[in-house]
Amino acid sequence: MTPPAAPSTASSAPLRILITGSAGFVGSHLVERFLGEGHTVIGVDNYISGQPQNTALFLGHPHFRFLEADVVQGIPYGGEPLDWVMHFASPASPPHYQQYPIETLMVGAQGTQNGLELAHRHGARFFLASTSEVYGDPLVHPQPETYWGNVNPNGVRSCYDEGKRYAEAITMAYHRTLGVDTRIIRIFNTYGPRMRLDDGRVITNFVDQALRGEPLTIYGNGSQTRSFQYIDDLVEGISRLMAVAYHEPVNLGNPDEYTMLNLVEVMEGVLGRTLELRYEPLPGDDPKKRKPDITVAGTLLRWKPQVQLEVGLTRTLERL
Amino acid sequence: MTPPAAPSTASSAPLRILITGSAGFVGSHLVERFLGEGHTVIGVDNYISGQPQNTALFLGHPHFRFLEADVVQGIPYGGEPLDWVMHFASPASPPHYQQYPIETLMVGAQGTQNGLELAHRHGARFFLASTSEVYGDPLVHPQPETYWGNVNPNGVRSCYDEGKRYAEAITMAYHRTLGVDTRIIRIFNTYGPRMRLDDGRVITNFVDQALRGEPLTIYGNGSQTRSFQYIDDLVEGISRLMAVAYHEPVNLGNPDEYTMLNLVEVMEGVLGRTLELRYEPLPGDDPKKRKPDITVAGTLLRWKPQVQLEVGLTRTLERL
Repeated sequence: MTPPAAPSTASSAPLRILITGSAGFVGSHLVERFLGEGHTVIGVDNYISGQPQNTALFLGHPHFRFLEADVVQGIPYGGEPLDWVMHFASPASPPHYQQYPIETLMVGAQGTQNGLELAHRHGARFFLASTSEVYGDPLVHPQPETYWGNVNPNGVRSCYDEGKRYAEAITMAYHRTLGVDTRIIRIFNTYGPRMRLDDGRVITNFVDQALRGEPLTIYGNGSQTRSFQYIDDLVEGISRLMAVAYHEPVNLGNPDEYTMLNLVEVMEGVLGRTLELRYEPLPGDDPKKRKPDITVAGTLLRWKPQVQLEVGLTRTLERL
Repeated sequence: MTPPAAPSTASSAPLRILITGSAGFVGSHLVERFLGEGHTVIGVDNYISGQPQNTALFLGHPHFRFLEADVVQGIPYGGEPLDWVMHFASPASPPHYQQYPIETLMVGAQGTQNGLELAHRHGARFFLASTSEVYGDPLVHPQPETYWGNVNPNGVRSCYDEGKRYAEAITMAYHRTLGVDTRIIRIFNTYGPRMRLDDGRVITNFVDQALRGEPLTIYGNGSQTRSFQYIDDLVEGISRLMAVAYHEPVNLGNPDEYTMLNLVEVMEGVLGRTLELRYEPLPGDDPKKRKPDITVAGTLLRWKPQVQLEVGLTRTLERL
């Protein structure tokens, strides 16, 4: 791993950190990182999209404690004062949030607010996991944080997009009105070990199909592009932002773009074999193209993605 | 009043209608209309921006009942089955919602959801008062309902804009997921009797200044435009939409544009005297220009605004 070139949780005194969504893909990597740095972690999840095996990984750790709870109903923590409340709970992939639209909206509104209230009561800092989906179907490329987005407020994806936009708005309202010390990140497409193979995204689809020996599905002619951030880069950016007093949203993502056919070539290199392809028509709701402008993270956190796609895919396949 | 040219609540059997925000400007006009048509109305308000005198108007009416409650905490209605739950509760003018940003967000999220839950339990229909503010600072003029808007998700106005966008999203989620029979309107700038003179908008500012004998404040050179809908036109559109099964948002507003100096001339005509003006620099956050595309309401409801500005201003001044 790249040693931090800027202040981060790696160099801080031991912290007590509550993470909602601790059994999710990103949440579980935060738990791992913070425990490894000597911090105490309280994980909270209701397993609506998180996975019990991601809790089991840490249950034996002396500084880890787990609360099974739906943060929409409240966060049943009554222990010693917290330093951070980090709100990462939410269904985050289209198949999951479209299965649970009302729950997804609620974890953006009541869930975020319960986290903010807990942070406020403890004098703790609050960290919101927002998303590149707040940009919707962007008309500006790449997207800087100042871009306001192009989001359908009542379409089938709005449960996630509008839930997260609301989460940002209420986070800023608690910051401005009650002085809660807040952070907001907008996470772009991220992959790595422990991602769910049923999340419907292209890397997980390809990995799943390659491991099953099935042909990889290419929609359209495969020339559409995506960018992919390895989970460790995201976690490093989060850790650095925790050490900086900055309250506006910060993009964390990898701006390198790959066509679907480029991605197949990289996977073939990693797996050491040729992969068969199956072409299908582009679906009507093909996911939008988004690419982060990471100038703010670069300037503020001296952060940029370090893990090349070949390396990240290799690590992902090793630890699936 | 123009007789309805299309089905509306005027021709329906007696209904039992619960209205949140019944003591607000728009809410109180709905109460008046529905009681006048023979329906039963249950009003709910917590007076955060509504006014007790708007409840007092109807307290003696045999078909009116009032519940003082914060709909964010729940709607304490336990009576006979409702036909409609109409969610009009929210601070709605910039000075009010910026004074109560967290409450404004909550009435958009928990308040809307409590209304949806009540409607779902009663098998009632649900009517959401949304707003032209969901278009933010629009890049398209006029704004059709299909325009997705240009809204800052975390600026100082986001408590209202994002609260209402969330309200639309959760209304559609209840419609799609649970089959609740819903309606959504987007209300553009509306004026009339019982508007609060401290709401910070230009008509109320001008009326207030004219009645006090003070000069009217013109920001900039007075050439910027606004459009103004008289309350009775809005209420007629609401009543007609209740008679039609249409679930997508519908704009209700008056597309006629007036410059600030045109508005002064109309007021001078209504008041029969010349008004003194005082010019001040344009503020940095001058309210955005918005103008409704009302094609959908015209086609669907055979609705268009009937009340000219001169007439509406005369009625407003008579009944202040």
